[in-house]
Amino acid sequence: MSKEITSRQADYSQWYNDLVIKGSLADYSAVRGCMVIKPYGFALWEKMRDQLDKMFKDTGHENAYFPLFVPKSLFEAEEKNAEGFAKECAVVTHYRLINDPDNKGKLIVDPEAKLEEELIIRPTSEAIIWNTYKGWIQSYRDLPLLINQWANVVRWEMRTRLFLRTAEFLWQEGHTAHATAQEAVSETIQMLNVYAEFAENYMALPVIKGVKTPGERFAGAVDTYCIEALMQDGKALQAGTSHFLGQNFAKAFDVKFSDKDNKLDYVWATSWGVSTRLIGALVMAHSDDDGLILPPKIAPLQVVIVPIYKGTEKKELLDAKCKEFVQQFKHAGIRIKFDDNENARPGWKFAEYEMKGVPVRIAVGLRDLDNNTVEVVRRDTKQKAVISMESLADHMIKLLDEIQLNIYNRALAYRDAHITKADSWEEFKNLLDEKGGFIAAHWDGAAETEEAIKEETKATIRCIPLNNPQEEGKCIFTGKPSRERVLFARAY
Amino acid sequence: MSKEITSRQADYSQWYNDLVIKGSLADYSAVRGCMVIKPYGFALWEKMRDQLDKMFKDTGHENAYFPLFVPKSLFEAEEKNAEGFAKECAVVTHYRLINDPDNKGKLIVDPEAKLEEELIIRPTSEAIIWNTYKGWIQSYRDLPLLINQWANVVRWEMRTRLFLRTAEFLWQEGHTAHATAQEAVSETIQMLNVYAEFAENYMALPVIKGVKTPGERFAGAVDTYCIEALMQDGKALQAGTSHFLGQNFAKAFDVKFSDKDNKLDYVWATSWGVSTRLIGALVMAHSDDDGLILPPKIAPLQVVIVPIYKGTEKKELLDAKCKEFVQQFKHAGIRIKFDDNENARPGWKFAEYEMKGVPVRIAVGLRDLDNNTVEVVRRDTKQKAVISMESLADHMIKLLDEIQLNIYNRALAYRDAHITKADSWEEFKNLLDEKGGFIAAHWDGAAETEEAIKEETKATIRCIPLNNPQEEGKCIFTGKPSRERVLFARAY
Repeated sequence: MSKEITSRQADYSQWYNDLVIKGSLADYSAVRGCMVIKPYGFALWEKMRDQLDKMFKDTGHENAYFPLFVPKSLFEAEEKNAEGFAKECAVVTHYRLINDPDNKGKLIVDPEAKLEEELIIRPTSEAIIWNTYKGWIQSYRDLPLLINQWANVVRWEMRTRLFLRTAEFLWQEGHTAHATAQEAVSETIQMLNVYAEFAENYMALPVIKGVKTPGERFAGAVDTYCIEALMQDGKALQAGTSHFLGQNFAKAFDVKFSDKDNKLDYVWATSWGVSTRLIGALVMAHSDDDGLILPPKIAPLQVVIVPIYKGTEKKELLDAKCKEFVQQFKHAGIRIKFDDNENARPGWKFAEYEMKGVPVRIAVGLRDLDNNTVEVVRRDTKQKAVISMESLADHMIKLLDEIQLNIYNRALAYRDAHITKADSWEEFKNLLDEKGGFIAAHWDGAAETEEAIKEETKATIRCIPLNNPQEEGKCIFTGKPSRERVLFARAY
Repeated sequence: MSKEITSRQADYSQWYNDLVIKGSLADYSAVRGCMVIKPYGFALWEKMRDQLDKMFKDTGHENAYFPLFVPKSLFEAEEKNAEGFAKECAVVTHYRLINDPDNKGKLIVDPEAKLEEELIIRPTSEAIIWNTYKGWIQSYRDLPLLINQWANVVRWEMRTRLFLRTAEFLWQEGHTAHATAQEAVSETIQMLNVYAEFAENYMALPVIKGVKTPGERFAGAVDTYCIEALMQDGKALQAGTSHFLGQNFAKAFDVKFSDKDNKLDYVWATSWGVSTRLIGALVMAHSDDDGLILPPKIAPLQVVIVPIYKGTEKKELLDAKCKEFVQQFKHAGIRIKFDDNENARPGWKFAEYEMKGVPVRIAVGLRDLDNNTVEVVRRDTKQKAVISMESLADHMIKLLDEIQLNIYNRALAYRDAHITKADSWEEFKNLLDEKGGFIAAHWDGAAETEEAIKEETKATIRCIPLNNPQEEGKCIFTGKPSRERVLFARAY
């Protein structure tokens, strides 16, 4: 076990922070609640972003960019949305600084440069986007409008954690407009499926697709769909949401279209988003007490080669061989690094790449040159193997696939072992405290019950799974009749 | 000539706005001075960004992300930088909205939620980044640090124009740290060369590389290098800058490193950036009175195929043939669209793609099917040609290269014809008013002279070209001795 990282057992929360900082993903900043995403962390985000972007484009969406600022009068137009975000809005009130007359070299806000109307920094962009769509949509020929935006957003959270909850974060937000409710609902579900496919096939993160209860809906949505993942401490994490917005925003911003019969109607809307929060989920779902474990498909580096030698004897031969592998691997599309830094010893390098979660480490020593072999170590299982140098690139491709699958299966086994039925209030509370994970229990459908359970246990209804089996039962809290179980959990 | 666009002759400025709006690149927004980048404009930006990003990575840089906000105390630490940007800073002063007690459904800024320290929205990120580098740099082993950021920035400009000058814009900013002045200067020049190569080889935009006079330097820089381009109205446009920052920011933020001999010294810095302003340059350098002309290498769409038919006779055959071309073109890496929209007539489509600057348009009619030919029209010259269907993809690749080169050569010929020497004040003023372009003239090197010339003519010194020929002469304004000519122009 690495000395530098707090173990999960000792302090799960500190373990997470250690991984993020020492794994070089992010750093704290001088701005309250805002983080710096370091190059290694950003390279991971780029891999995730590029794959998602491809999936959005493959489903017909285009990217665009809308202003960072939302004038207050637009922000408040959709009342529920405004109410939902008002408490966490950063507000620009002035547009100029001047020299402080009492303090040379210091600046103060110029009281003369007060904005007539305050500007909200977007916590989400429905308002500014639907105000723009009003000018773009007149007829059914302008629909559907399928637009995505990659952007930074700001939500002034009181308690922040690297990636999981920061005042500023990076995300994508899809905003689509449709002629019918049915088409908008289909889009909502389609994007939920895109998110689930991305989480499972690329992040190796099993997720449950479901719909939120009214109490957990996005402010301004008719229905919020979500994917929910499970972390190694038994807490759930909402990994993405897709909202059917009905005609709420079209009505707030007066966006109407004329259909084929020249009849006017309000436009139907969806929005959907995932954020840098996903990196937090990735860290917590797979990693161990020695550092990060990254799924090969999105790992910035997939394989690292470390040369082992003493003195300079045969060093050139060794370097030449390693560089040959680098070429072969690059040709095979593998993201490879040859670490020939002479200022660090192999043992230090091994620990460093374990910490950073590089899926495969290859060590090549002088004896290997004679034997025509290399030593290969998997990050996920720590298994060592001595492998022939022949067809090494082919072997790597297979091994990376195997690691991807193993990480997924491990997370899936853990997740599936942590979905437990509870049929009484005692059982429910015991499970929450002693086992964690998702608890499948009957609920009477009342918002007050949901709220009371949350008050008492900090557990929330994560979702009502799609295609949920129907089953007669009694609410664990009130004993009132219920037709299906819902999934409860404590959550990030 | 298209009816919808104002001609360059009639009103150059209106022509530009028409192109941006009607070419679907951008739109005005509800926020003062901020624009919406529309999907077609954003696709163009993506092409530019991806190529630049590749060039940055090929030269060893990594991407990272730093906070949008700069606390006022950090912002003011480097005095010249702070002074340079203070007048155009958007300032966040509060972090919450509450219900307006006097006005149901409206919100007001919560006076209780005032920040202890105001946050500046980054107009550029030197301050927040160098404050972070302080924690990352201890030893020469931590250097060089080669980081780039793609981000939005805000500069509160009083007079804004789509792409050319907007309150919020998208850009990249490189921020590097080095152990020696020499290495930092080399980096500054290397990135200037990257920008020039990108402008010339991808944007087809000839540029002059040079260094700014002290009066035109970036606030906080020791030297500012730039690439300067010429627009069709004879005005210059600064298309990118690369700054040698000396130790100014290291001193302001106390960033020191220990060298190999354990001696402490301040770190040397560079920063360099290009922005969405480049799109404005692209539009103004190449386009004509019928719409945009985009260089094939960065055009979102390179070829569009329009089917020509009446009724439904042979429509299926025609569609099948067009789709065959689409497959062939995609396979050849050409960005292609088959426009089979039945609601628009061919003539309308032709005008639309001319407006959008798609480099090549192919029309295929029923007679073409019999003749085994297609009609090909180049956007840059409007030349029509009837071409055999055989090896059409190969032909397209050659044609796109030819168009790229022709656009560049045309802009180069115009630019070279608009660099004129002036040896007297009268000549200088006449050239500015009657011919425009760059004027190569002697200047005595004094900031007051530069200022007086600007006051009287609105012309500024765009740059002192790199490798500038040395030549004895007399300042056109003061008659004082001078050793070299500098380039003046009126500029965007």
